[in-house]
Amino acid sequence: MAKIALAQINPTVGDLDLNRKMIIDFARKGESLGADIIVFPELAITGYPPEDLLLKRSFIEAAWKNLTEIARSIQNTWVVVGTPHREDGKLYNGAAVLHKGKIETIIHKTHLPNYGVFDERRYFTPAENVASVKMAGITTAVTICEDIWVNSGLPHDLCAREDIDLIINISSSPFHTGKSEERKNKVTGFASSHQKELAYCNLVGGQDELVFDGGSFFCDTKGKVTASLREFEEDLIVVKAGEENSGGASAFHSFPRSYAYPENVFEALKKGLKDYLSKNSFHDVVIALSGGIDSALTASIAVASLGAERVRGIAMPSRFSSPESLQDARELAENLGMKFDVIPITELMDSFGKALSGVFEGTKPGIAEENIQARIRGTLIMAVSNKFGSLALATGNKSEISVGYCTLYGDMAGGFALIKDLPKNMVYDLAKWINGNSPTPNIPARSIEKEPTAELRPNQKDSDFLPEYKILDPILKLYVEEEKSIEEIISLGYIEGDVRKVSRLVNQNEYKRRQAAPGVKISPKSFGKDRRMPITNRFFET
Amino acid sequence: MAKIALAQINPTVGDLDLNRKMIIDFARKGESLGADIIVFPELAITGYPPEDLLLKRSFIEAAWKNLTEIARSIQNTWVVVGTPHREDGKLYNGAAVLHKGKIETIIHKTHLPNYGVFDERRYFTPAENVASVKMAGITTAVTICEDIWVNSGLPHDLCAREDIDLIINISSSPFHTGKSEERKNKVTGFASSHQKELAYCNLVGGQDELVFDGGSFFCDTKGKVTASLREFEEDLIVVKAGEENSGGASAFHSFPRSYAYPENVFEALKKGLKDYLSKNSFHDVVIALSGGIDSALTASIAVASLGAERVRGIAMPSRFSSPESLQDARELAENLGMKFDVIPITELMDSFGKALSGVFEGTKPGIAEENIQARIRGTLIMAVSNKFGSLALATGNKSEISVGYCTLYGDMAGGFALIKDLPKNMVYDLAKWINGNSPTPNIPARSIEKEPTAELRPNQKDSDFLPEYKILDPILKLYVEEEKSIEEIISLGYIEGDVRKVSRLVNQNEYKRRQAAPGVKISPKSFGKDRRMPITNRFFET
Repeated sequence: MAKIALAQINPTVGDLDLNRKMIIDFARKGESLGADIIVFPELAITGYPPEDLLLKRSFIEAAWKNLTEIARSIQNTWVVVGTPHREDGKLYNGAAVLHKGKIETIIHKTHLPNYGVFDERRYFTPAENVASVKMAGITTAVTICEDIWVNSGLPHDLCAREDIDLIINISSSPFHTGKSEERKNKVTGFASSHQKELAYCNLVGGQDELVFDGGSFFCDTKGKVTASLREFEEDLIVVKAGEENSGGASAFHSFPRSYAYPENVFEALKKGLKDYLSKNSFHDVVIALSGGIDSALTASIAVASLGAERVRGIAMPSRFSSPESLQDARELAENLGMKFDVIPITELMDSFGKALSGVFEGTKPGIAEENIQARIRGTLIMAVSNKFGSLALATGNKSEISVGYCTLYGDMAGGFALIKDLPKNMVYDLAKWINGNSPTPNIPARSIEKEPTAELRPNQKDSDFLPEYKILDPILKLYVEEEKSIEEIISLGYIEGDVRKVSRLVNQNEYKRRQAAPGVKISPKSFGKDRRMPITNRFFET
Repeated sequence: MAKIALAQINPTVGDLDLNRKMIIDFARKGESLGADIIVFPELAITGYPPEDLLLKRSFIEAAWKNLTEIARSIQNTWVVVGTPHREDGKLYNGAAVLHKGKIETIIHKTHLPNYGVFDERRYFTPAENVASVKMAGITTAVTICEDIWVNSGLPHDLCAREDIDLIINISSSPFHTGKSEERKNKVTGFASSHQKELAYCNLVGGQDELVFDGGSFFCDTKGKVTASLREFEEDLIVVKAGEENSGGASAFHSFPRSYAYPENVFEALKKGLKDYLSKNSFHDVVIALSGGIDSALTASIAVASLGAERVRGIAMPSRFSSPESLQDARELAENLGMKFDVIPITELMDSFGKALSGVFEGTKPGIAEENIQARIRGTLIMAVSNKFGSLALATGNKSEISVGYCTLYGDMAGGFALIKDLPKNMVYDLAKWINGNSPTPNIPARSIEKEPTAELRPNQKDSDFLPEYKILDPILKLYVEEEKSIEEIISLGYIEGDVRKVSRLVNQNEYKRRQAAPGVKISPKSFGKDRRMPITNRFFET
């Protein structure tokens, strides 16, 4: 029997000092609860993913120095912690085992993900061999993330060995909708197929576009989860391994929560935003409020994440803005208790019209003029951002970013595009859920109910240009996330004209997305590192 | 003895129809010159790199259909052409051998680059085996790019076999300064170490940030180059392999050129710009002309690449612009014979000042106001771009983009940032070279000679904020391209304060670069896919 602590921490990429202190602090917590073995996530020393920092020799050396310092602070307990490990000129993704002031051994990761958002083959060499580790009287198989997602290879064979008492897995597995269930199924399935207890420790916290959702757990030899950690928060519990009634946990937290849709999206966005600010030393945010649902949702999440005093809204009405839009923006700000300013832009539009009158002579007003409006707003929001040091949040959703129904440097301007991976229908789901779960409504009913419009010309509606969102969103999911062909999508019952138009717009607007701000990954396939499409791309299926 | 044609073509990513026709057309040319074997570049069927198009089943199927159509057009000659190849659920980077209307065999790539700009492990499985191919009476080892950059593994062992008469290598190897020499050394070294003749066929043309520079060649068993193709242009030659005096070439071109620095950079930029326009269906470009050297160089290259009638310059003077700057911009436009407009922005600055007077009350003018100026210009340039369908070129150089001395959505606005990978000192080199190689100077002497300034406030100089470029550029090269530590750079004789400031600025401005337009890769390590740094990154070396 051994007591295992799962230390689900939120390190910061590159902040080796902070991470070292955090690891030592959590190790002390584990010890105080009687743990024999304390398990930390994958690459906890550096934060995950460190990306090209791993190509800097000085970074690898500094990480190693911090690892040895942590080792010196460990005496009678055993610590398993993720670290990069350079050996014989190769770099490995390692799990260091620390005991009695020393690094006892380092296990290397075998299966290196190099798909989706992952680039691990860019940095690491796969393990050439693995071995069991005897700690606190039990024989463990120490594995790293993907190692137990694959039912073959070195880690699989090690875990199958009869003398293994416990499988330990250290992970940095990011959130997307459905991932928590998928992960639990994979990991518990691995445990039960090997008939071994398994201690699974995941990372938590936001890093650029990724949110790691934690939810670490312990499962028995049948794959039954006997203890869970919180999602989206740091946490630590101690469980007993290797006895009849294993898993009964001592913990600091009261009750582990797991979140269903759309609350899980809400939590991911809150966490992603909060950590982006704190880890990049921003204090507050500024948001352009149009009176529409996208900016209202962005503001509502920002207030839930940061508190109203750290969120500022700015309405920038033009001659095409309806009075109701301004009213709705103001009502939202009042509901949320946030700062609110109004900067009318009609005069600025006229100044641009005058400045361009020579060059534009003889042309008709069109997209160019609409975009000027959006870019005046972008310039104003960035001016407030620059003046007061606030992070500007862009408010575009995934549907419009997919088809390019947005203005580069206009409504796309900002340092963080919070809801860029939410299709419009998810925006509605979340807005309604937020209103339904607040004592008084956050988001004005009219912002949710009115027909979507960009208000860049008189009587403009999104549906003038795009298929309705209840058609558009499923087509986008099939085409972008599932890589289905046009033919396959049509065969599912969608109108050919819609499917061709949508796929053409998606391809034509890659250049806009390339210049978009980062935002939280919510879907199985987000834009950014997750989907690497050429801008120059003439593959239009016939 | 066999006659080998090297068909150095410029396909377009995703345009399978165009690529098929191009391949058949070049095959006919090779046949007309008496070739027995006609060799095309790596992934010539799809263009390179197709990136995540390779994850679309419909794309792989369409590529295969085009390959079989090409095969049908080939009778007595042999064709070697790069293609993706799906087999048993795995995807390979393949070299198809076509003969008598059929696909005779497909060789798979063994060494898949997954560093720098390359992501081949994301898509492809390495070859499990390779074999010699008998064509036109000779026994060949068909290899793919990286396969002959590595002196071990399956391709190496195959090439070492005594029965191999000729090594064929199909490549898509992109340009950077020094690459042409490096490549020639690697490839001829491989040939001479195996004492085999080698036919090397590289891709040519621009694709997003990459320019493939061609320069294919044939070398003898001692590694001596006996025939070369042009750089930066499509080309085809036929050489004799397998006899005493092999290599003597029949060709369409008169004289193969290779380019020394800085002319190679000039050619790469011209090609990259030209192909970005044509492959993305743009007709012309618009450039903000400040009177400074960066915009002057950008305009000069654009005119050399596209012709003066497809380049439009716009000067946008403010109250901080010197009269000389406007004069220099005008003189440049006259020298180049391009369209030129002036749109003064002082009134627009005042309008923004008025609009923001409430929100900015009690604050002092600073960066926020400077950025408004830059963003007014960005908005105007994009308005002209939107109105006339011209591609806006951003004019920032690598030095300023490295340290963030540029305005997001301001001078960074545009669809293509032509010189973003040229350090300021390379900008000077190229400007002087252009003037020295034109009958009359292109770029006004004052634009080259005056002290660099952003002219966003009175008497501003770049050197108020940054170390001089002759100090800054070498520090940047060491820190960014060579990943040297601060300590190492200081030990080379640079001032500690400069090194720390520069490295801090580089790290703090990753968020700006993430939203930058693409531009031509010129250096061994450019920003973009070549250098994947986290935005959230607290690794500041002490």
